[in-house]
Amino acid sequence: MIIVMKPNAQEEQIQKISNLLSSLDLGVHISKGQERTIIGVIGDKRKLRNVPLELMPGVDKLVPIVESYKLSGKTFKPDETVIKTGGISIGGTSFVVMAGPCAVESEEQIFKAAGIVKQSGANILRGGTFKPRTSPYSFQGLEEKGLKYLERAGKEYGLLTITEVTSEKAVETAYDYVDFFQVGARNAQNFQLLREVGRAKKPVVYKRGPSMTIEEWLNAAEYIMSEGNYSVILCERGIRTFENATRYTLDLSAVPMVKSLSHLPVIVDPSHAVGRANLVSPMALASLAAGADGIIVEVHPSPIDALSDAAQQLDPVQFSELMQKIKAVVGVVGKTLKEDQWKA
Amino acid sequence: MIIVMKPNAQEEQIQKISNLLSSLDLGVHISKGQERTIIGVIGDKRKLRNVPLELMPGVDKLVPIVESYKLSGKTFKPDETVIKTGGISIGGTSFVVMAGPCAVESEEQIFKAAGIVKQSGANILRGGTFKPRTSPYSFQGLEEKGLKYLERAGKEYGLLTITEVTSEKAVETAYDYVDFFQVGARNAQNFQLLREVGRAKKPVVYKRGPSMTIEEWLNAAEYIMSEGNYSVILCERGIRTFENATRYTLDLSAVPMVKSLSHLPVIVDPSHAVGRANLVSPMALASLAAGADGIIVEVHPSPIDALSDAAQQLDPVQFSELMQKIKAVVGVVGKTLKEDQWKA
Amino acid sequence: MIIVMKPNAQEEQIQKISNLLSSLDLGVHISKGQERTIIGVIGDKRKLRNVPLELMPGVDKLVPIVESYKLSGKTFKPDETVIKTGGISIGGTSFVVMAGPCAVESEEQIFKAAGIVKQSGANILRGGTFKPRTSPYSFQGLEEKGLKYLERAGKEYGLLTITEVTSEKAVETAYDYVDFFQVGARNAQNFQLLREVGRAKKPVVYKRGPSMTIEEWLNAAEYIMSEGNYSVILCERGIRTFENATRYTLDLSAVPMVKSLSHLPVIVDPSHAVGRANLVSPMALASLAAGADGIIVEVHPSPIDALSDAAQQLDPVQFSELMQKIKAVVGVVGKTLKEDQWKA
Amino acid sequence: MIIVMKPNAQEEQIQKISNLLSSLDLGVHISKGQERTIIGVIGDKRKLRNVPLELMPGVDKLVPIVESYKLSGKTFKPDETVIKTGGISIGGTSFVVMAGPCAVESEEQIFKAAGIVKQSGANILRGGTFKPRTSPYSFQGLEEKGLKYLERAGKEYGLLTITEVTSEKAVETAYDYVDFFQVGARNAQNFQLLREVGRAKKPVVYKRGPSMTIEEWLNAAEYIMSEGNYSVILCERGIRTFENATRYTLDLSAVPMVKSLSHLPVIVDPSHAVGRANLVSPMALASLAAGADGIIVEVHPSPIDALSDAAQQLDPVQFSELMQKIKAVVGVVGKTLKEDQWKA
Repeated sequence: MIIVMKPNAQEEQIQKISNLLSSLDLGVHISKGQERTIIGVIGDKRKLRNVPLELMPGVDKLVPIVESYKLSGKTFKPDETVIKTGGISIGGTSFVVMAGPCAVESEEQIFKAAGIVKQSGANILRGGTFKPRTSPYSFQGLEEKGLKYLERAGKEYGLLTITEVTSEKAVETAYDYVDFFQVGARNAQNFQLLREVGRAKKPVVYKRGPSMTIEEWLNAAEYIMSEGNYSVILCERGIRTFENATRYTLDLSAVPMVKSLSHLPVIVDPSHAVGRANLVSPMALASLAAGADGIIVEVHPSPIDALSDAAQQLDPVQFSELMQKIKAVVGVVGKTLKEDQWKA
Repeated sequence: MIIVMKPNAQEEQIQKISNLLSSLDLGVHISKGQERTIIGVIGDKRKLRNVPLELMPGVDKLVPIVESYKLSGKTFKPDETVIKTGGISIGGTSFVVMAGPCAVESEEQIFKAAGIVKQSGANILRGGTFKPRTSPYSFQGLEEKGLKYLERAGKEYGLLTITEVTSEKAVETAYDYVDFFQVGARNAQNFQLLREVGRAKKPVVYKRGPSMTIEEWLNAAEYIMSEGNYSVILCERGIRTFENATRYTLDLSAVPMVKSLSHLPVIVDPSHAVGRANLVSPMALASLAAGADGIIVEVHPSPIDALSDAAQQLDPVQFSELMQKIKAVVGVVGKTLKEDQWKA
Repeated sequence: MIIVMKPNAQEEQIQKISNLLSSLDLGVHISKGQERTIIGVIGDKRKLRNVPLELMPGVDKLVPIVESYKLSGKTFKPDETVIKTGGISIGGTSFVVMAGPCAVESEEQIFKAAGIVKQSGANILRGGTFKPRTSPYSFQGLEEKGLKYLERAGKEYGLLTITEVTSEKAVETAYDYVDFFQVGARNAQNFQLLREVGRAKKPVVYKRGPSMTIEEWLNAAEYIMSEGNYSVILCERGIRTFENATRYTLDLSAVPMVKSLSHLPVIVDPSHAVGRANLVSPMALASLAAGADGIIVEVHPSPIDALSDAAQQLDPVQFSELMQKIKAVVGVVGKTLKEDQWKA
Repeated sequence: MIIVMKPNAQEEQIQKISNLLSSLDLGVHISKGQERTIIGVIGDKRKLRNVPLELMPGVDKLVPIVESYKLSGKTFKPDETVIKTGGISIGGTSFVVMAGPCAVESEEQIFKAAGIVKQSGANILRGGTFKPRTSPYSFQGLEEKGLKYLERAGKEYGLLTITEVTSEKAVETAYDYVDFFQVGARNAQNFQLLREVGRAKKPVVYKRGPSMTIEEWLNAAEYIMSEGNYSVILCERGIRTFENATRYTLDLSAVPMVKSLSHLPVIVDPSHAVGRANLVSPMALASLAAGADGIIVEVHPSPIDALSDAAQQLDPVQFSELMQKIKAVVGVVGKTLKEDQWKA
C-alpha cells in the first residue's frame, strides 16, 4: 500500500506515520517527490485493517497496490481451477451448458424440459425451487416438492442438477437433492448466506450482484472460500446501467477480465441479463466467443405457459439451434462440449 | 395496463387476446391508431400475473399504467404516514436525527457516543452490532454483547436505539434490545429477511439497495408491509454510479420523488453514501433542505480509534456544528426537531 | 400516445384535453379504468411537439406508444440497409473489419499498418488524424498531413479508408481523402457536427455516446439522416457504468437489440470499450457472435511505439490470430467476410 | 506516478525501466515489497505522455499519485477563484441565482421573465437562443434575434445575461450580446468548442457532461483555461444513472467534492437534472445547503405556454417562494445573496 501525503505535510507527520508502521513490524519506504511525499508500506497489510491511516494528520489518501481479495486471486493460485463433479468438469478446456426452466412448475414440466436439455447436448439441468421475486404477490416456487421433481428428472435423463438457494433453510433442504447450489444476484452480498454455502461444501454457481464491481465480487467470493469451499463458479448475469432497453447490461468483457485476475471458472447467464428470448441466443454464443467456461440459460418446453419470466425462456427449437451454433464455435476458442460426460 | 400490438398485427390476434381478457373478467378497450392497435385492460391486473401476454402472437409490448406497488403507494393511502414510538414521531412535520458510531465497539465507546448524540439534540442512537463487511476478514460486530451496551447507553441518556439486522437470527436476538431495526443496503433484496422483519412488527429503517430503482424499492417494501408491519421508514443511502470520487452517489432528488409517490417517511444516510467526513455535513444539511424526514449519521467520540469506516464518521465537534446548522434551517422547510421528544 | 389522468381527475379536465386534441385534428379515445382514466391520442403526434400536455390540470403522465425516432426505425424501413461503397458492402450478410492504428503518426507507420491490415484479410483502414484527447496537452493528430498519408496507404494496399471528424472544418478537410467519416463518442450529441456530416453525404460510422440510451442514439442518428445522408453505420463502443476494471462497459446486447429496432448496420469497436489489448480479441470475436455487421479495431505495427492509446492496440500477431478465429466463426452466424471486395 | 511490477518481474526488466526514466531526467525510487516491486517516478510526468510504460515487459499497472489536471486544481492555485463581472461576484461568499426561461421565445416573453427574475432578487438572466434538442424536429432557438431580445431585457431590468453557445459560429454571434457563455452538457467534451470559448475570454458556465467523472470534468476545463480564460464556473447538472424516475441524477455531493479539489466556483442546475418542476425547488435549496456558489434555474412567466422543456420550468409563484427560502438559509452556510450587485 502507498500512503500519499498532502502537499504541505510536515516532516513530523511523516515521521509519526513511519513510527506507527514500524511498531507494527511493517517495512517503510519514504519517497519525496516534487509535489508530494509518498510512503510505501511493505509487509502484510492486514495488520492495518483497523488502523485508520487516512485520518492521520498530513495524509491525503491511501492507494492500494495489490488486490484486496486473496483466495480467489491468481496470486494465491496461478493455475486455473477445474471443478469436477459427477463426471463433469467445469473450467479449463471444458464448456458446460446448464439449461432448464426458470422455475420447476410440475413434475411433467421438468421432465419435458430435461428431455429437451439432454437431447440438445447440455449437461446440467437447472430449475428454480425457491424463487426470489420482485413482488411478494408473485409465484414463489414449489420448494421441497420441486426439488424432488428436479432430482427425479435429473436421474431419469442422466443430467446433473442445480437450484438457487435463498436462505440457510433452503441450503439445508436442497442439500440432498441437487449437485450444485446457485446463489442469485439479489443475495450476492448476503454474507450470512455465502458463509452457509461455504460450510455446505457443495459446488456453487455464485452470481455477480447487479451493482458489484469485479473487485467486490472476488472479495465476496472469499466469504464462501474462507469457509473451506473452493468449488466456486463465478457467473456474470448483467449489471445495472442506465440502459433500460434490456433488463440489465450483460458485462461480457468481465469474462476475460475476471479470468485474468482469478483462477475460478466463469460462466454467463444471458437469460436474466437481457430478459428477452430473441436476445438470449446471440448473447449465449457471444459468451462462448468471449471465453466463458459455460452458460446457464432458461429453456422451457412451452414458454407461453411458464409461471415466471416467460419472456426470457427459450423454446425447444430456439435452444436446439443455439446448441448447434455452440457446437460449431466451441473448438475455435479451444474448448470442448462434452456431451458424454456423465456419472457412470 | 396497455397492450401495444405490432404494426402488422392481425384482427384475429387482437380478437384472441380480447377473448382471453374477457374470460378472466377483465374489461377490454380496443383503440386502433394510425400505426398500431392498442388494447386497454380494465380491472385487477393481478389476474394477469401468470399470463405471459407478451408472448402472444401479434403483441409488441406491455405498458403499465399504474404503479406496481400497492401498500407503499399514495393511491393506497394518500395521507403521509407518521410513525410514533417511544415519544418520537417520524414523518409529517418532524425531523429526526439518528446518530452514533458505525459499530458498537465497547461499553465505554457507546456511552461516550450517546452523551455526544444527546447533548447535540439528536433523538435516536445508532450503533452496528451485526456488521456486514465487504471482506470476511474484517471486524464483524459484537452481536448480543453490543446490543446490551447499546440498550444501556440508550437508557442512560434517554435515547431510542437502532441497530442493523442481517439475518433471521439477528432479528430474534435484537428484538428485545432496540427500538428500531435497520435493514441495510446489501440486504435490500434479501426477501427472506424483509419478511422476517415484517413479521417482527418493530419499526424499521429500510435502506435502498445501491442498484435499486425507486420503483423496485417501493415494491420490495411490500415484502415488509404485506406481513403486517406498516412502520417502514425508507432510507436513501447512495446509489452505484460511474462516479467513484465518492463511494456512492447520494440520490437526493429521490427524497422529493419518493415523497410524491409514497406515504412513507423518507430519511437519508449521508455517511455511507459519500464515505468521507468532510462531505457528510454538507450532504446532511442538503438532505434536510431537500425535504427529508430525518437523517442517520455516523458520529464517533474519536473517529481515529474506530474499528470500522473511520473515514466517514463525524467527530463530536463536526456533529455539534452540523446540529447547529440543522436547527437554523429546519423551520424554513416547515419541520421541527423535537429535542424534548422522549418516552415519559 | 397515452395520456394518463390522475386518480382524482375531473370530468371537466378530461373534456378540456379532449377538446384540445380535437382542435388539432387528432383522434381521441377515452378509456375509464377502475383507478384511472386514460386518453389515447390517435394521429400524428408531432402536432403535440409544443403542447405541454403534462402541465394540463388533471394529467398525471404521458406514455409514448410508438418510438420517437423515424428514419432510423424499422417502422419507416423494414428491410435492412446495406451500404455499398468502393466494392464493399456493409450490412446484410457482409461482415466488415476496419482496422488500423489509433492515430496516423507517420507515413511509414500507416503504410506498415496498412500492410498488416490487408494481409490479415481486413477491408478498411482506420487512422485518426484529428484526435479528441481528454487532456489538451496530449498529441492532437497530424490533421491534413495525416490524411494524405492515410489516402496513399489505402491506395497502395487496396483498402478503403476511414477517419474521425471532430468539427465542421475537419469534415471539409477530410472530405476528399477518405471513404468513410467517423463521428466519435465525445461528439455523439454535437448536433451541429451531425448535421454537417449529414450534408456531406459520405458514409459515416456513428458511435454511440457513452451515456446515450439506444433510443437517444437512434434519435440522434436522425440529425444525420434528416439532412439526406442515409448511409449511417451505428457503432457500439462501450457505455459508462460503475465498473472501472475496463475503461467502458461494452454493451454487446445492444447489437441484437438495435438490429431489432433499426434497419441500419451495427458494428462494434471493442478497442475503446475495454482499453486493454488482451481483452480486445475476445470481445471482437464476441461481437461477431452477437450478430454485429463488423468491427473496428486498433492495430499498430508496434504498439509500444504508439503516440496514443498504446495499451489497447493489437500487435500484428494478435490481429492475425483474431482474423483466423473470425474466419472460422463468420459462417456459423450466416455472414461472410469478403476479402476480395475491392474497387476494381 | 507509481509503476507496479508483476509478481514475477525480473531484475533486468526493472533495470530497463529505471534506465528509461533516468534518460528522461526523471527521478527513480525502487521499493521491493513482499509480493511486488514498485517504482516511484519523481519529476514532471508529462515527459511520459507518449511513453507507453504499461506495455513494457514486467509492468503490471501504473498508479497515478497526483491528479491529472493542473490549472483547475488546488495544487496550482490554493485560493478560491472569485469571478467579478458587471458588479457581480461569483465564488467566495457570494451566492448567485441565474434564472430565466429555457428558451427565448419572443421579446414579450423574455421581458416578462426578466421582470419576475429581477423582482425575486436573482442577479442573472438566462435564456437559450441556440437550442441543442434531442430530436432534429424540435424548436431549435431564435438565434441572433433571441440574443437581441435577451440583451434588451437584461438592460431594461438591470440583469446580467447568459446564453448557451453550441458552435464556433454561436460563440462569435453571441459574443457582443451576453455577459456569460454557457457550454452545455452535450458539448462538455466538444474540445473544439471548449478551445473556442477559451479564446473568447468571456466568463463561462461549463456544465458537466452526464457521463463525466469529476476528474474528467476538471481535465476538460483545462481546454478552456489553457487558452487563457480562467473565468470558468463549473456547473453540476445531473449524471446519467440507472434511475429513470428523474431525468438525470443530480450529483450534489459533487459540489463539496469539487470544491475540495478545485479553486473554481461551482453552481448547480437542478432544472435539467430532475426534469420536473415540483422537484426543482427542493433541489435548488439543497444545492445551497450543500455549499454551491449559486444555481441556474428555469423560470417561465407561463410554463404551460413554453416551447421547450415546459415540465421543468418554475412558474413565478414557485420561483418567488424558492427565493424566500434561499434568503432564509443563505446566511447559515456563510454566503450572501447580493440583490443590489449590479453594474453601476
